[in-house]
Amino acid sequence: MNVAMTLRRIIISDVHEHQLVELRELDGSRRFTIVIGYFEATSIDRRIRKQTSERPLTHDLVVGAIDELGGQLRDIMISDLKDGIYYARLRVMQDGEIREIDCRPSDAIAVAVTSDVPIYVAEDVLDQAAGD
Amino acid sequence: MNVAMTLRRIIISDVHEHQLVELRELDGSRRFTIVIGYFEATSIDRRIRKQTSERPLTHDLVVGAIDELGGQLRDIMISDLKDGIYYARLRVMQDGEIREIDCRPSDAIAVAVTSDVPIYVAEDVLDQAAGD
Repeated sequence: MNVAMTLRRIIISDVHEHQLVELRELDGSRRFTIVIGYFEATSIDRRIRKQTSERPLTHDLVVGAIDELGGQLRDIMISDLKDGIYYARLRVMQDGEIREIDCRPSDAIAVAVTSDVPIYVAEDVLDQAAGD
Repeated sequence: MNVAMTLRRIIISDVHEHQLVELRELDGSRRFTIVIGYFEATSIDRRIRKQTSERPLTHDLVVGAIDELGGQLRDIMISDLKDGIYYARLRVMQDGEIREIDCRPSDAIAVAVTSDVPIYVAEDVLDQAAGD
């Protein structure tokens, strides 16, 4: 069972190397925080603010590659949590099948925000993460 | 006519916002420099140094998406120079056809270094750029 999440906030610090992104359950109150890199945090932030760029930035390139190769991004999923590391996947429909592309949650969220697709978390990951 | 290039050096400055990457003709002496962002410069640099990451970084995700969707990256090309901005493309073979994915040269070079594929520049772009 996957749970739909919403991006609640990003905390970007110029002082600290690691930034924070907080996800909250769409139809509930469970929430958790993921530590991400500065580049990925600013990329998510500029996409939320609808700041456009004349040329494709790196996450736009991810989306462009999927489009050009005949894929339709359906959603992203945070699928696992092992030893404190979150694992994510882009789920792309191509030729009637779902292809799953392994990635970090930060890249997945940046791509989801760019393409306006749902963010899911596996139920057991949310159980673990929200219980912290 | 496209000209094969080699990545001659990257100059990364912690003080300046813009970093430099220099390309040199593989079978000749023409060379030129492109201004790129800090994130892209450090991404290229870590790939040249063969620094690996346990999880896919953003340029690894670009490569992973191409692989998962049945594409084979053939090369990257810096195809245009307009108003001081360089334009690039990833050239990917899929189902017997070449698909061209629009991107910035910095992302293209990072992807080329990751996948160890050739870097080309259009002859007329090299003429303009190397003549500066």
